[in-house]
Amino acid sequence: METDGHFARKDLLGLEDLSSEEILTVLQAAKSFQEISRREVKKVPTLRGQTVINLFYEPSTRTRTSFELAAKRLSADVVNFTVSESSAVKGETLVDTARNIESMHSDIIVVRHPVSGAPHLLARIVKSAVINAGDGTHEHPSQGLLDLFTIQEHKGKLEGLKVLIVGDISHSRVARSNIYGMRTLGLQVTVCGPPTLIPVEMERMGVRVTYDFDDALTKTDVIMMLRIQMERQHGGLYPSLREYARLFGLNRDRLNRAKPDVLIMHPGPVNRGVEISPEIADCTRSLILEQVSNGVAVRMALLYLLSRGAYGKAAH
Amino acid sequence: METDGHFARKDLLGLEDLSSEEILTVLQAAKSFQEISRREVKKVPTLRGQTVINLFYEPSTRTRTSFELAAKRLSADVVNFTVSESSAVKGETLVDTARNIESMHSDIIVVRHPVSGAPHLLARIVKSAVINAGDGTHEHPSQGLLDLFTIQEHKGKLEGLKVLIVGDISHSRVARSNIYGMRTLGLQVTVCGPPTLIPVEMERMGVRVTYDFDDALTKTDVIMMLRIQMERQHGGLYPSLREYARLFGLNRDRLNRAKPDVLIMHPGPVNRGVEISPEIADCTRSLILEQVSNGVAVRMALLYLLSRGAYGKAAH
Amino acid sequence: METDGHFARKDLLGLEDLSSEEILTVLQAAKSFQEISRREVKKVPTLRGQTVINLFYEPSTRTRTSFELAAKRLSADVVNFTVSESSAVKGETLVDTARNIESMHSDIIVVRHPVSGAPHLLARIVKSAVINAGDGTHEHPSQGLLDLFTIQEHKGKLEGLKVLIVGDISHSRVARSNIYGMRTLGLQVTVCGPPTLIPVEMERMGVRVTYDFDDALTKTDVIMMLRIQMERQHGGLYPSLREYARLFGLNRDRLNRAKPDVLIMHPGPVNRGVEISPEIADCTRSLILEQVSNGVAVRMALLYLLSRGAYGKAAH
Repeated sequence: METDGHFARKDLLGLEDLSSEEILTVLQAAKSFQEISRREVKKVPTLRGQTVINLFYEPSTRTRTSFELAAKRLSADVVNFTVSESSAVKGETLVDTARNIESMHSDIIVVRHPVSGAPHLLARIVKSAVINAGDGTHEHPSQGLLDLFTIQEHKGKLEGLKVLIVGDISHSRVARSNIYGMRTLGLQVTVCGPPTLIPVEMERMGVRVTYDFDDALTKTDVIMMLRIQMERQHGGLYPSLREYARLFGLNRDRLNRAKPDVLIMHPGPVNRGVEISPEIADCTRSLILEQVSNGVAVRMALLYLLSRGAYGKAAH
Repeated sequence: METDGHFARKDLLGLEDLSSEEILTVLQAAKSFQEISRREVKKVPTLRGQTVINLFYEPSTRTRTSFELAAKRLSADVVNFTVSESSAVKGETLVDTARNIESMHSDIIVVRHPVSGAPHLLARIVKSAVINAGDGTHEHPSQGLLDLFTIQEHKGKLEGLKVLIVGDISHSRVARSNIYGMRTLGLQVTVCGPPTLIPVEMERMGVRVTYDFDDALTKTDVIMMLRIQMERQHGGLYPSLREYARLFGLNRDRLNRAKPDVLIMHPGPVNRGVEISPEIADCTRSLILEQVSNGVAVRMALLYLLSRGAYGKAAH
Repeated sequence: METDGHFARKDLLGLEDLSSEEILTVLQAAKSFQEISRREVKKVPTLRGQTVINLFYEPSTRTRTSFELAAKRLSADVVNFTVSESSAVKGETLVDTARNIESMHSDIIVVRHPVSGAPHLLARIVKSAVINAGDGTHEHPSQGLLDLFTIQEHKGKLEGLKVLIVGDISHSRVARSNIYGMRTLGLQVTVCGPPTLIPVEMERMGVRVTYDFDDALTKTDVIMMLRIQMERQHGGLYPSLREYARLFGLNRDRLNRAKPDVLIMHPGPVNRGVEISPEIADCTRSLILEQVSNGVAVRMALLYLLSRGAYGKAAH
């Protein structure tokens, strides 16, 4: 549980403005928390009597469960505050809801919201620590951190590694958080996907762009496949799922041409047979389940580091 | 945690039949619990091993969260048992559901139900303590108590204060609980709103009625604005939201004519710009967020006092 | 909490393949846990730091609450992971969801699923203990066990007792689990209902079939009424609810012709006036609420026994 403590922030809103020292502090803390979930008694008293609120404006059983388990294993009290789309429409504003929650003496608010920037608005108006659990198409920083943690576990380092991110870059908050974190830590990032799904600002972010998956995958240390959000894409941004799978799906044939120690990642949930073939999703080089596992450790680290930050503030 | 203990009831169903001594016992207990939520470790072992069930037949994230946090800070085990309208229709009766819950050895059942009187029916058939968290248009006693607590915090007394409650009195369980409690404690209550939204029994309840907000607000110590439930009103009981805001909305102009130390209250969620203007909702005289904060303390007090009552009974 | 320990299984998927010794081990453990829920402090540290996931693909507030309370009274951390029908359609497969949950270091997964056999599939792919909380029309073993426990409490024995199960046998996982358990323990089982609702394999299972409720009820020690699932039956498998109640409903007239010490059981929720008349559901011979109460004790026993099993495995 010892970290050198260079994480003096109130909130975690994104990886864009974190320093490499701050990111490494989270990864180091996560390493020490990783062991707790492997014990028979998976619980420490670290956050006993602290209140964590999961404020979710989008349904997300997986991410919510990961934060809920992280909080419970730290002995925090956690309450799920789910706002359905319908009640958000007729109900109070995000700001009023957040102020209400804070008035109940929350310590940390974990927020997922369909609007990019919503957690930043929240963070400005509440004294509680705010963790962005995904805002629109903007950032999903705890996912970016758990991906970095997982790569570091396997490669023993981060700087200088080559990462290829494949899929719908435009709409992916996972891609965006990873790109920010990876660029800060000195990884080389290439994105690949249909031209309609790659935003123009990539080169400004120090990211290479390619449309040729077959060529790009031969040179990379990590292949990160993104989920095609079939429920969201109705704009004809790519021709068909079959065509997408043919051009940008990861399968055995493609993998045979990658480095033998390439890491395969995916934030889940997986569309088997679309962006990744079933046999590759389940192969020994696939880290998909390790990512999920490390997600709990990273979120324990975040809750711990931000609660400590909150103490600091309260003492002022 | 010391109270003089004059609260020997099994249930809290409403403020109508509570004595002034009983109400003051709750407020006194709430004062001692208020401090717990301000600690770094917001948790005491008072109700360890007690089972609290939140039985909600209406969606209410705010009130449910307040009770859930109150229970958890007292170390009770709390389970949310939410019955959607659709499943209530095809499922078992309220009585059977309550008996089932009780059979799982619940200690306290917190119930919200769209039918006035439903918690009273429940209280008769279960041995568990029952707390009415809102029944139809009847009572919402924990809201009434937290409002009284909040006024007392600011005025240092309750007896003799003048309170003006503004809005849809007819459909407001918040207004009804406040009126009962305030009358018992010797406050002077005036209600104000469109004639179509003020019930005839007001004078029998010892309450003055006025339709002239501008006149009434000059003489009062507390202005309590009620929420216009825009999702419920389709009967043409008032002309339009704009017209409602003009006649019965609290804004800067109106507030300038009130006493300088007038308290502004609202049970939330607020319809900004309808019953209250945004600047007034957020001004220093507005106690809206303090009400939310005090709600947790009052609910901790209720859970504590009723669990003690339950012990008494079990010992017979 | 002492049991002789003859329960070396990883999972509880059904009663079909449990030995009589295994069933009796669960009932014996349940007896020791029953007392905990009757204490003022209903909580023991047995499963502290263990993670229980309620993975429900069908809405079931009652069964989920029973497992949730059982887990909390054993001090486990419990997370509800509810998958709505709609999100299951567009989301990941059951297998992927289970692997994800397990990656978060779950110890026990309690699963309800509309497809018969789904928990068995899960049990094969995860190392966590799996408890079947109802799969399609197949089994609901914790219900069967709590029914056996309840009968034993009242009759002091199980072997040789005559049980009559009445209703829609074909679609009842409750009936199926009871039949397996009862046959293994040497009870005589007769099923009764409309011919369209009794499956052909009954005789192979060692069960007698009758269509004459009035004749069968005179000779039985236990009458177990099943719920008519009015929301599911639209296939014209029986003429009408009134006709059903006339032929297969339990009422005062019928009960008068049964043994004076006959036990009346029903898994709930009850359709009053359909399969059982209100006065009989509430009469002193009805064990309906005791079944609910014993359900928590049986589920505590299962969580305890399977967590111990999980330890054993982890040590290999």
